[in-house]
Order: sequence, then C-alpha cells, then structure tokens
Amino acid sequence: MARAEWIAIDWGTSNLRVWAMQGATVLNAASSDRGMGRLDRDGFEPALVDLIGDWIDGPTMAVACGMVGSRQGWVEAPYATVPCAALPEGMVRAPAADPRLTVWVIPGLRQMSPADVMRGEETQIAGFLALNPGWDGVICLPGTHTKWVHVSAGEVISFQTFMTGELFSVIGTQTVLRHSISADGWDEAAYGQGLDDSFSRPERLAARLFSLRAEALVSTLSPTAARARLSGLLIGSELAAAKPYWLGQQVAVIGAGTVAGLYIKALAAQHVPAIQADGERATLAGLTAAWRKLKEI
Amino acid sequence: MARAEWIAIDWGTSNLRVWAMQGATVLNAASSDRGMGRLDRDGFEPALVDLIGDWIDGPTMAVACGMVGSRQGWVEAPYATVPCAALPEGMVRAPAADPRLTVWVIPGLRQMSPADVMRGEETQIAGFLALNPGWDGVICLPGTHTKWVHVSAGEVISFQTFMTGELFSVIGTQTVLRHSISADGWDEAAYGQGLDDSFSRPERLAARLFSLRAEALVSTLSPTAARARLSGLLIGSELAAAKPYWLGQQVAVIGAGTVAGLYIKALAAQHVPAIQADGERATLAGLTAAWRKLKEI
Repeated sequence: MARAEWIAIDWGTSNLRVWAMQGATVLNAASSDRGMGRLDRDGFEPALVDLIGDWIDGPTMAVACGMVGSRQGWVEAPYATVPCAALPEGMVRAPAADPRLTVWVIPGLRQMSPADVMRGEETQIAGFLALNPGWDGVICLPGTHTKWVHVSAGEVISFQTFMTGELFSVIGTQTVLRHSISADGWDEAAYGQGLDDSFSRPERLAARLFSLRAEALVSTLSPTAARARLSGLLIGSELAAAKPYWLGQQVAVIGAGTVAGLYIKALAAQHVPAIQADGERATLAGLTAAWRKLKEI
Repeated sequence: MARAEWIAIDWGTSNLRVWAMQGATVLNAASSDRGMGRLDRDGFEPALVDLIGDWIDGPTMAVACGMVGSRQGWVEAPYATVPCAALPEGMVRAPAADPRLTVWVIPGLRQMSPADVMRGEETQIAGFLALNPGWDGVICLPGTHTKWVHVSAGEVISFQTFMTGELFSVIGTQTVLRHSISADGWDEAAYGQGLDDSFSRPERLAARLFSLRAEALVSTLSPTAARARLSGLLIGSELAAAKPYWLGQQVAVIGAGTVAGLYIKALAAQHVPAIQADGERATLAGLTAAWRKLKEI
C-alpha cells in the first residue's frame, strides 16, 4: 500500500483511532480499544506503532487530539484559555523512541468562569470551521459529556459541558431504575413526553426519575418506554439549562447518528432549526488543519 | 436472658435488623447484612432464625416491614393504595417451617398518579403518628430514596420519592466526577453554596455537575468542597421540586444524624422550621403498633 504522508490520531479515554493520510485524503484507517484510560505513560507509543507501523517507512508526522494530551496522557498539552482559536498555539511534541515518528498533540481548551474544559472537541470545532468558513453560531457536540460552544469570528467564545450521556448510562444501569429500563429499544412518544415534561418544568427532574420505577410497578410502563423517557427527561433538562446558548442562534450538531438526531429533534420542538455535521469528518478536517499549520513551521 | 414476647423486624434491601421485644420495650437487638437483595425465597427463614433463635423458646409472633414484603421478598404483601392509613389492613403471613414462628409482613403503600411506591417508610410514618397523635403535616424521610409524605387525620394522603441519596452515590463514585470528589469529609460553606445555586435556579442542575470536575482542573476546588457542593446541588434541586409538599406546612424529618441534619438546614434556609424524629424509634413504634393490631385479631 501507499506510504502515509502523515498520520491523523483521535485518542480518547476509551478508544484509539488512526488514519493514514495523503493531504486531506484518507488512505487507510484502524482503531483499537487502547484508550488513554487503559495506558500508562510508556504504553502510548507501542499502542500507536501497533496500528500504524505498516503505514510508515521513513520520517512521518503524526497529529493527535483528545485525552492523549491530558495530565494522565502521553504528554500534557496544557489547556489554552478561551476566548481563543479552536486550534490555538501550543501543540506539544510527545516523546517517541521510534526515529520515524514525530507526534504532535493538540491542546484542549479551558474556560475560567464558569470553569469548564474540553479535549478533542476543539479539533472537531476547528474542522467544522475549516469546512464552513465564516460560520458563526452555536455548536452542540453530543456525547458522554455534551458540549455547547459559542463560536464567533473563528474563535471559541464560551462553552458549557453537560454530563447527560454519562448520567443516562449510570442512572439506567447503576441505580434501582435498572430494573425498569431496557438495555436498548426505543419509544418515540415516550422520548417526546420526557422531553416536554422536563423542558417545561426542569425543576421537577429530580422528582420524575423515580416515577420510571414506580410506573413500572403500579402501572404498565414498558422498559423500552422507560428508557426513551429517561433520555427525554435528561436531554430536556439539558436544553432548558443550555437555553442561553441556543436561543436565537443558528445551531450545528456535530456527531454521528442516533444521539445527534435526538438533539436535533429536541431543538426542533423549540423551533430551533439545526444542521447536522458528521463527527468523524469534522475530526479529520481539524487534524488536517493542525497538520497544515505544523508543515508551515 | 428473658424470652422475647415478640420480634420486631426491619428487613431492607441491604440489611436485616431485629429486636427482641417485651410490649414496647426492647430487650435485645441484632443485625446482619442478609438483606432482601442477597436472599432467594428459601433464604429468609434461616437468615432470621440465625439472629433470633436464642430469643425464643415457644410460639412467638414476629412483625416485619420493608423490602421483605416485595415481589422478590419472603412473601409478597401487596401494596395498599393511598389515601389510606399508614398501617392499612392487609398484613400477610410469611411461610415459616419453624413451628415456633408466626411471621407477619406489613404491606407497602402505592400511589396511582403520579405513580409512586414505598416499603418500610409507611411503618416509620405509623410509628411517628403513634408517638405524636393527631399530628398533621408533611413528613420527610431522607435516605437512598427520600420520601416526602403528606399526612392528615391519621392517613397518608400523597407522597413523592426522590432518588437523591442514590444519585449522590452513583454520581460521586461512578462518573468522571469521582476524580474530583472525596469519599468523606465536609465543607459547610460549599454545601450552602450548592444548595442556594440549585434551589434558586434548579433548571441549571444539569449544567452545574460537570463544573465540579472543571473547577478542580482549572481552579482550586478541593475534593471535600466538591463533595459537599454536590450534596447541596442535589438536595437543593430536590427541595425546589418538593416545594408543593413543604410550603406552608409543618415538617418532620425522620432519620438519624447527618443526612437528616442536611435536610433540616436546607429547610431552615427557606424559613421552614422542621422537627427531627429518630428513625429507629419511629420504626419500632410502627412495628409495635402493627403487633398490637395483630394481637387484637
């Protein structure tokens, strides 16, 4: 196969994803479950070389984003402070013993007040802006920790993180509600009901959770409907709290498939039209933008 | 030692507590970790006899409350539907092979709309009412699943469950916040701050959780302060949602020590004076009232 001109790396807590790149073109892709959370400092280089060893035969640059740059990562890439460009100065070189590899890590962003941090999403934002030059508005990045990001004139102005995905997971699997909630399946009406309930009376979220269990016991709430209603309750509550972000703004939701669709549906119910952008495409565009900056140095 | 006249049993999901009783007087007490959650149907009688075998030498009545009466318990004691007395008709006899034992199980209460259920707290409510005849108002029973209960003319009128205790536990130990939250310790100012934040703007709860992590990363929030603030955020949110219960009512908080104190402090901040009643005393008074009813049969 063709030798990679450079390597794109998305290295999160749980997963490592790599692409062999020629300019902005993907030649090959691979992934493993050797995320930052499973590695100690000496484990990063072997985990990377295992995936990309066959793609390189001489000096090659690699550009990485995500938790690989955290204090517990391969090398700490200190946060840049907003407002700033999504791809600010301050990429940090990771120590690699393999003489073929030059690995750069993109810094995350932080906000001093209210305190907030991101690692990885800044690269998707930079990629989205590279694909949509001049775009101003609010970017929503759903996930384990959903981010709402106000972008203007090419800079990240402010952002806010919601633990909605993680709350959905722990409430649905680690609390008493697990007895009443299915592991998969969906009920669109129940999702809409949860969304409405919680958006219109967000202060009652705490009161509504146990009712998922109680309705299963005294009434006929199905485990599938309970799952969708829990999702609606949590996303509705998030939307109520994130209103200062999306109200009167154009919104882009960056992410794949199902979860991004839930946010777009929730925004539509508030008469906020939102465009959806592919998450992997945004990541690759952001890593490519970072690689171009490094080539210029 | 003196033979027990009867046996009082509080049998929850996690623990089994028993008392050797003479009328309303405690002769002896014991407990084990053989809660309902760890037993199959054949395991209940041996778990009980292991604790009380030495206290009985002839036919003895035992009265039990809690999850022992759930569908997964020793015998199902079907819910009574509110409004009704805290100790309604419908105690169910559990099948015991030991000829000395007659074991009665107190039914839980259910509410059809909004759906809700309790098992065990109804006995504490009955006990509190036995100790405070004619009391009308709202009873708050803090715990893994906190209950707010409207009581009038000796009946339970309505109630609502909040998963506050369980949410505190899973959010503090099973999510990313665990890295920023201590396992114990306390910071009174941080508790008050979380309480105020969340009570005054409950719709922002979802936004405030991740800030506990972010402030630890970009600022100087201590793990102890983060723990107290999380508690304040969740209790403040509960208080906002439970306002229809406590507003303009006299309130009694039934429970031991620390957690009951947190609720009393939170209510005091809203200018609601609340009395505190001991949980174990209420349980024993409720079981004693049930035993007296059974003796009359």
